[in-house]
Amino acid sequence: MEDLGRLSCGRDLTSIPDLVVALGSASQSGFDFICAPICHPRYKREFLEEIPDRSKSFTRADLVLSSQDWSSLIVGKISPWINVGSLNEVVRKNSEKALMQEVNYAIHLGLPSVMLELGNYNIINLAHYLITLIKYKKKEILALEIPAELPPDVELERWIGEPIKACILPTDVFLTNRKGFPVLPKSHQAFLKQLFKLNVQLILSGCCKHKGKGVQFYYQYLEHLYQTQAPLDPLGRFAKGYEDYLQCPLQPLSDNLESQTYEIFERDPVKYAEYQKAIYEALIDRVPEASKDAIVTVIMVVGAGRGPLVRASLTAAENAGRRVRLYAVEKNPNAVVTLETLKTEEWGDKVTVVSSDMREWDAPEKADILVSELLGSFGDNELSPECLDGAQNFLKDGGISIPCDYTSYLSPLCSPKLHQEVSQGSKTDSKGPQAPFETPYVVRLHNIFELAKPQPCFTFYHPNRGKIDNSRFISLEFSVKASAMLHGFGGYFDATLYGNTKISIHPDTHSPGMFSWFPFYFPIQDPLYVEGGKTIALHMWRKCTGKKVWYEWSVSRPAPVPIHNPGGRSYVIGL
Amino acid sequence: MEDLGRLSCGRDLTSIPDLVVALGSASQSGFDFICAPICHPRYKREFLEEIPDRSKSFTRADLVLSSQDWSSLIVGKISPWINVGSLNEVVRKNSEKALMQEVNYAIHLGLPSVMLELGNYNIINLAHYLITLIKYKKKEILALEIPAELPPDVELERWIGEPIKACILPTDVFLTNRKGFPVLPKSHQAFLKQLFKLNVQLILSGCCKHKGKGVQFYYQYLEHLYQTQAPLDPLGRFAKGYEDYLQCPLQPLSDNLESQTYEIFERDPVKYAEYQKAIYEALIDRVPEASKDAIVTVIMVVGAGRGPLVRASLTAAENAGRRVRLYAVEKNPNAVVTLETLKTEEWGDKVTVVSSDMREWDAPEKADILVSELLGSFGDNELSPECLDGAQNFLKDGGISIPCDYTSYLSPLCSPKLHQEVSQGSKTDSKGPQAPFETPYVVRLHNIFELAKPQPCFTFYHPNRGKIDNSRFISLEFSVKASAMLHGFGGYFDATLYGNTKISIHPDTHSPGMFSWFPFYFPIQDPLYVEGGKTIALHMWRKCTGKKVWYEWSVSRPAPVPIHNPGGRSYVIGL
Repeated sequence: MEDLGRLSCGRDLTSIPDLVVALGSASQSGFDFICAPICHPRYKREFLEEIPDRSKSFTRADLVLSSQDWSSLIVGKISPWINVGSLNEVVRKNSEKALMQEVNYAIHLGLPSVMLELGNYNIINLAHYLITLIKYKKKEILALEIPAELPPDVELERWIGEPIKACILPTDVFLTNRKGFPVLPKSHQAFLKQLFKLNVQLILSGCCKHKGKGVQFYYQYLEHLYQTQAPLDPLGRFAKGYEDYLQCPLQPLSDNLESQTYEIFERDPVKYAEYQKAIYEALIDRVPEASKDAIVTVIMVVGAGRGPLVRASLTAAENAGRRVRLYAVEKNPNAVVTLETLKTEEWGDKVTVVSSDMREWDAPEKADILVSELLGSFGDNELSPECLDGAQNFLKDGGISIPCDYTSYLSPLCSPKLHQEVSQGSKTDSKGPQAPFETPYVVRLHNIFELAKPQPCFTFYHPNRGKIDNSRFISLEFSVKASAMLHGFGGYFDATLYGNTKISIHPDTHSPGMFSWFPFYFPIQDPLYVEGGKTIALHMWRKCTGKKVWYEWSVSRPAPVPIHNPGGRSYVIGL
Repeated sequence: MEDLGRLSCGRDLTSIPDLVVALGSASQSGFDFICAPICHPRYKREFLEEIPDRSKSFTRADLVLSSQDWSSLIVGKISPWINVGSLNEVVRKNSEKALMQEVNYAIHLGLPSVMLELGNYNIINLAHYLITLIKYKKKEILALEIPAELPPDVELERWIGEPIKACILPTDVFLTNRKGFPVLPKSHQAFLKQLFKLNVQLILSGCCKHKGKGVQFYYQYLEHLYQTQAPLDPLGRFAKGYEDYLQCPLQPLSDNLESQTYEIFERDPVKYAEYQKAIYEALIDRVPEASKDAIVTVIMVVGAGRGPLVRASLTAAENAGRRVRLYAVEKNPNAVVTLETLKTEEWGDKVTVVSSDMREWDAPEKADILVSELLGSFGDNELSPECLDGAQNFLKDGGISIPCDYTSYLSPLCSPKLHQEVSQGSKTDSKGPQAPFETPYVVRLHNIFELAKPQPCFTFYHPNRGKIDNSRFISLEFSVKASAMLHGFGGYFDATLYGNTKISIHPDTHSPGMFSWFPFYFPIQDPLYVEGGKTIALHMWRKCTGKKVWYEWSVSRPAPVPIHNPGGRSYVIGL
């Protein structure tokens, strides 16, 4: 069992006669922090109607708490009367000054965050102020207030794509169970459990509504909900800590993988079992039971790494009772050291280790079965097509490639979090500020909303005995299920290893427990607002020269988006 | 007592028949890691004289250890026969290939570092290779081998300025004590204790030289030395973790300080005691015992913050038995909230809180004593001169300013570490790559070598009843005590508060235990080699306009260095 830690839960208070007493009482009920007005209501202020008497202070002094406590136990609330969107100029200007004063005092105290209620009025002027204030390294984040009646499911799903940091639960959303204790409706429970996955903090607002029960019972119920959420599946456990973390795709063809990388991928509990099954079935299909002692099947593992597919082949042959001769071809001289050792210590003469790039190797004989694991998160993005086109020169006519085909998929995503992460790299990229937006990433997609289901993109077949052309172009149309911002596209793949044996990271058909691939993410530089029911038209190119391969992408509906990565200016994969 | 943790100490081995056994035995003797040859000597290689047979591996396989162990327990040693500086072309080219192969294999294994012995031969070609390899995010660091006979003190002192990561101690440097155990000579002990302050790791090389005593006794002796080093002084404890960490100087005049900043500085155990003493003596000097009930001294604390100087003034007056009337003038409205509260709850009518910039305040009467704490690490760098020139308008003729004078100091420094830290900011500075080198920093100087003693730079006196001109220019000449690189200049100050009461951060006269100021550091962009005995000529300007103040600096000997920060293009202090 993983350790979930504790739920972080605060108490929202509107009137606080004594901050230290209020903190003590909230803490005794189990709460981790309180939300308190920055300005004590006793200090009234009027900036405009008379000259302000600056010798009177506008709130309690910072000495009430240590700076350590201010910075960890208090969320500051902006006065609710402040309305910088007011059409009354006196109210607006007074509001502006009060907002600045309160935010500056919150900064003075070192509060971890301030909370500001969004009214139904014009928020353009408020947005302007927030953007000005955010230069203090602070970030806008959302606190979602949960109403008694939840909106439709697709609306809730959409919120899961937003950068929600906290969730406000008014006490009057709670029901009373038979013993008189506060509980939430089933639908609220389900939504909260989704929010828990985003590490959302809860804030309990409103006064105690359950007679004879203190607020600690609300806290205890919420903590109980938190502790009884479903445990993570194996993939979730493996991916823990990598959620929404952008990684540059590996380029195993131009860079040599490191020992640790091999070690992690070799631990995949599913992938090599599926390969073993595929090789087993291919051996059984090719060699009739009657000929099993006469025929020796030549298997070439191309891109053998530290040998997991060699091992899978040997086990499959043993299980099938078929004779094999194996070649393990590997271009990384450091991995060859391991292959040589395994040959000496385990495999013996059945295996020949070849230290060579598969595209250049002059093979001494032809293979019956070519086994490779050259697929990336987007299928062809580690240049499996180009490598296997070279390697098939030493595959017999009628020989088998494992895998024999693979297809990539794309789906439109809303994710302010990922957009923010990509923007981070924008200031310092030596290829220019557009480069991070013209690069695909490997990322465990988490704080996202999928605007429509994935659709197939590019497919490759092996062996490819026709005219070899691995460039591709496709246009896809997605019908959007709810109004949202479009920030980019998720990329996935599935592959047929042999016959019915498949592996997949497509969200709907994901091989359970297989962790070798996180999805791909293609960003777009300027997020696009898309209304529910409208169409997103995406265009994706795979382009090739003799030295490199790259993707370009663009959107033409609902509005045109410039072509990303034209000519491979920001990102290419080296051959 | 602070927790020193444990000494990190490794064992250097030259011949390792079995890596796992060697690790186990070193660990049992107390060592944290071992230094092992990357290439097992049994695998001979010859790249040039015949076509290499790539099917034979050149060393042991990575499977011997987990990648976790490779990356934490093993330092890789480059084969000692490698000589990329050889004048024999065959040896050189063979060496180049072997070096690349070994370094690539070390990267494959994920080793934390590799060790390469510098011979006495031409190292230019080696430097070229290292620079090429360092693109793998690795850094050059030094492992210093300690000989039996130590070089002169100034040479040892010079090494303390270098980025030494490890120190190799051959067993034959050790003496034998009366009980037959290994011990180090006194001089070696002293140098090691200096190295401990730089968090240096030790590496024990050579075989056991003490009959009947295993290598664990060397380890135990070194661990004993580590644990018995002198404890940090109060300033050292306060500064723990900030060593060589560059901070931008505060600009309290244009930015408001935050609550936490006030809280930290108010804790200084020395500064306010010295101020209280100075105020006490000023009160005694100004008001004769006979007039103590008749005369009320007007004290104005300008830049009162959250009131520590108000409190020091009140206590001084009480101790002196003198009557006072106090004004606390502060421009930060957030700190005024605290002052108002303290007036209400503690100080009462004796104190008037004034929410105003001291340069603009229209004072209702004139002061006898003006108390301020506006000094920065370099004395005048927080614009104390400009502020007090404004405030002295409400100081009586013959009135006292506390402080009454202050002087800045400069000394030339060698510090590759600080140069490296400054360079880090160079790629991303929006003012251009030169900007980080044209900015002074506040930094706890640690991994440095002082090339010469500090010399006085600029002095200011208050009140200043003459013509007010706070611009300054000075040329200083330093005679260098040992050959070294010049990376920049350390900045310090001392100040006379009143009479003989002084505060100082000059290294030779530092007020014991006073932690409010770390030194200043003025970098130079291109480090300069200076021979021992030669002269460094430094030129320093303080320039002013009505809106800002800045420093410019340049060196003319031993070689000219461009003027840094001309016209304040990279760094100014706003008025």
